[in-house]
Amino acid sequence: MIIIGELINSTRKAIKKAIDEQDVEYLQDLAVKQEEAGTDYIDVNAGAYVYDETKHLVWLVEKVQEVVKKPLSLDSPNPKALEEAMKIHKGVPMINSISLETDRYNKIAPLLKDSGAQVVALCMSDEGMPESAEDRLEVGKKLIDKLDKDGIDLTNVYLDPLIKPVSVEGKYGPQALDAIEMFKKLESGIHITCGLSNISFGLPNRFLLNQAFIVLAMGRGMDSAIIDPLDKKMMSLVTATNVILDMDPYAMNYLKAARAGKLI
Amino acid sequence: MIIIGELINSTRKAIKKAIDEQDVEYLQDLAVKQEEAGTDYIDVNAGAYVYDETKHLVWLVEKVQEVVKKPLSLDSPNPKALEEAMKIHKGVPMINSISLETDRYNKIAPLLKDSGAQVVALCMSDEGMPESAEDRLEVGKKLIDKLDKDGIDLTNVYLDPLIKPVSVEGKYGPQALDAIEMFKKLESGIHITCGLSNISFGLPNRFLLNQAFIVLAMGRGMDSAIIDPLDKKMMSLVTATNVILDMDPYAMNYLKAARAGKLI
Repeated sequence: MIIIGELINSTRKAIKKAIDEQDVEYLQDLAVKQEEAGTDYIDVNAGAYVYDETKHLVWLVEKVQEVVKKPLSLDSPNPKALEEAMKIHKGVPMINSISLETDRYNKIAPLLKDSGAQVVALCMSDEGMPESAEDRLEVGKKLIDKLDKDGIDLTNVYLDPLIKPVSVEGKYGPQALDAIEMFKKLESGIHITCGLSNISFGLPNRFLLNQAFIVLAMGRGMDSAIIDPLDKKMMSLVTATNVILDMDPYAMNYLKAARAGKLI
Repeated sequence: MIIIGELINSTRKAIKKAIDEQDVEYLQDLAVKQEEAGTDYIDVNAGAYVYDETKHLVWLVEKVQEVVKKPLSLDSPNPKALEEAMKIHKGVPMINSISLETDRYNKIAPLLKDSGAQVVALCMSDEGMPESAEDRLEVGKKLIDKLDKDGIDLTNVYLDPLIKPVSVEGKYGPQALDAIEMFKKLESGIHITCGLSNISFGLPNRFLLNQAFIVLAMGRGMDSAIIDPLDKKMMSLVTATNVILDMDPYAMNYLKAARAGKLI
């Protein structure tokens, strides 16, 4: 599982406050904690700053990279902010995200070309968010084909089927899982990821629904997730699920985590 | 999910001691707690008493049924013990278990006939335990056909694919899940259950592997499990998984459990 740590996001109150106050220590501590918890990419988002997102995103990249070795996930739909953040980012970043929406695609695809960057690709088109698993597959396939034709290495692509809350429609759970399985069966080389906490929106004890969903989604072929890596129970379940799915040979990672007292 | 509570099993030290000492209060308390936790069947096993299993099983049935309303799962391969326990059991019990082994099948099938009893059917034949998912399917299919021909209502059958420890072979995890999915796809009306704790045998933090496995197995179609219903985290994950799989309309059970403070 490739974990994208979601915590440094300016739409969260505490993060916005820390950025406002230039509280470098708080933000760097959160980056280090996520890296220590086993995060593969540390997401940085300055989207709360509508008029000067670029400046704040660049600042976040600089400050976070002072203390962590893992690459960052540059989280913005704004091509200008992404371009400037990519210039300053040391090593190869992840871009979060592109979609099939014409304007967004045309502005972000050129940034990916020849950069070697990983990219989160949202199953969203000019017609909006797809409804059924089949609709998701159609949009996802078009997006994969387009990225492929534009010279993007598909092993760098993290397709996000876009999860909707089960509190809105019960069938959104099975639909999301079916979409993941369909994408997996394409065998196109892509990864499958999602920002999974949306699944539990509107219900109590959300952490529990998120935990159940990540295990079920892994069982259907999801190999990445955008999550809070400091949620120890969720990380423990991910580690255990890798054993059950035979994706942790000789349970080496599991045993290492057990010895380190990380499994709860 | 149909939960079979596994705790009153004489192969567990504390239970053997309680039976030895005729500690009715201890055993009845454990039965009540399992019922309160949402158990559908309360398993009773006197298998540790090799020479007088029948006597002890009958005693357990009497004592447990004094305090609970849910039916019991009579857990024995011994036809005589099952027959006597069935005579004393109030209401329709579950029989745990029959298999395709000739002698066992021929002695236990007549007890089921016209009794309306539920029955756990193990995927085991005279050749022993099957290896691959396909082998399991073959044995399971034969067992289902045989039960059907012998007049057993297949909606009363709980097929157990027999889980082997992932510590022995990593592939046993995916094989068990594949077998569950294959059985589900038969659409024969059977339930699928398993005594799941075997999956984690030989590894530390077994509770965690059991939790991941039950969620994954539910995702592939398992609709029953033989578990410790007092494991609150596992029961919480089962409740959440039912929501994600759209098997809890309007999340009614989930919300009820949340309000009761049962979700952890």
